[in-house]
Amino acid sequence: MSARAGSGPALDFWYEFASTYSFLAAERIEMLAAEAGVAVRWRPFLLGPIFAAQGWSSSPFNLYPAKGRNMWRDFARQAARLGLRVVAPDPFPMNGLTAARIAAALDEAMRPSFSRAVYRAEFLDGRDISQRPNLAPLLRGLGHEPETVFALAASEAVKSRLRAETELAQSLGLYGAPSFVCADGELFWGNDRLEDALAWANGERWALEP
Amino acid sequence: MSARAGSGPALDFWYEFASTYSFLAAERIEMLAAEAGVAVRWRPFLLGPIFAAQGWSSSPFNLYPAKGRNMWRDFARQAARLGLRVVAPDPFPMNGLTAARIAAALDEAMRPSFSRAVYRAEFLDGRDISQRPNLAPLLRGLGHEPETVFALAASEAVKSRLRAETELAQSLGLYGAPSFVCADGELFWGNDRLEDALAWANGERWALEP
Repeated sequence: MSARAGSGPALDFWYEFASTYSFLAAERIEMLAAEAGVAVRWRPFLLGPIFAAQGWSSSPFNLYPAKGRNMWRDFARQAARLGLRVVAPDPFPMNGLTAARIAAALDEAMRPSFSRAVYRAEFLDGRDISQRPNLAPLLRGLGHEPETVFALAASEAVKSRLRAETELAQSLGLYGAPSFVCADGELFWGNDRLEDALAWANGERWALEP
Repeated sequence: MSARAGSGPALDFWYEFASTYSFLAAERIEMLAAEAGVAVRWRPFLLGPIFAAQGWSSSPFNLYPAKGRNMWRDFARQAARLGLRVVAPDPFPMNGLTAARIAAALDEAMRPSFSRAVYRAEFLDGRDISQRPNLAPLLRGLGHEPETVFALAASEAVKSRLRAETELAQSLGLYGAPSFVCADGELFWGNDRLEDALAWANGERWALEP
């Protein structure tokens, strides 16, 4: 149900392609996880159905304008700390369905590089990542044959796999992205909790009561 | 409008007595601000009217159960990192109106110790901080005469001061607590951003574009 069992510390990284802070986590997670000796499983999912189930028709950053304004400012500040200059995609949120299906279709080992490329196209270059013509060069740059991947991503098997992942995410208690889930089910929400999640995966419990 | 002008770096700390993460910020801010050489102004306000204005009848942690469940767990983890064992007040959110009026009524120099005492009673001891009999010992312990303070806190002058502070908070773009506002109006939301806010108050801009 969760990250690889029986082979050292592991962490599931649940991400949504429309999510600004998922992008920042995607930029940070590989180096931090390597330092921590934690294996990461990249698990794309869709926030749309989860938001819809709690009555939201769009991103909370659109529904609540003050929250949205500060998110964009904070996103720029946090990105600047990583040496990145971000843009707000138009429209926001981007429809990440096609990208998520592709990520779900790819071998696990290929998922991180593709996902990072999508995020960078979206949040650094302002590209519309809902469009196949914008995804094709990313795939080609990573050595994939775009048409083959598009066909696989559009298959019923992949569609239902992504649907099942999203349902699993919801059943695990996820309500936003990024989220990190440890092998024991411990859930951490948000890019700000990546370090804590890695520590937990490594057995750190601070002085938390059982 | 914002923190003390003309006398070195300063930061406004906006807090709400019902807010779990405001408690954690209240526990952390004095040591961190002292280390950073930043003067802190404690500014109690009410989230209720701001939430109501965006259509929320309660805390988002009640309205969105998955978010609420993870908040309580995260709150316990973050508190444990500070060596604190927290409880969930019942009911949640606590009505912090009386405590906020008292904080607004006290001299600025007396506000931090009173506010910390209220938070500790609420989140460590599970006491109902909406009740004067529970606030009186806290005031007495800090050398105040409770009845005098209660009378002052119930005055029209203090009531309207707190109302004006809440309206100011909303006009500054606040939508949650804790929030930190620098002298130039830069807004940081959440206990997780305290360190960044202090750095900003000290002139740090990372590589952020103008």
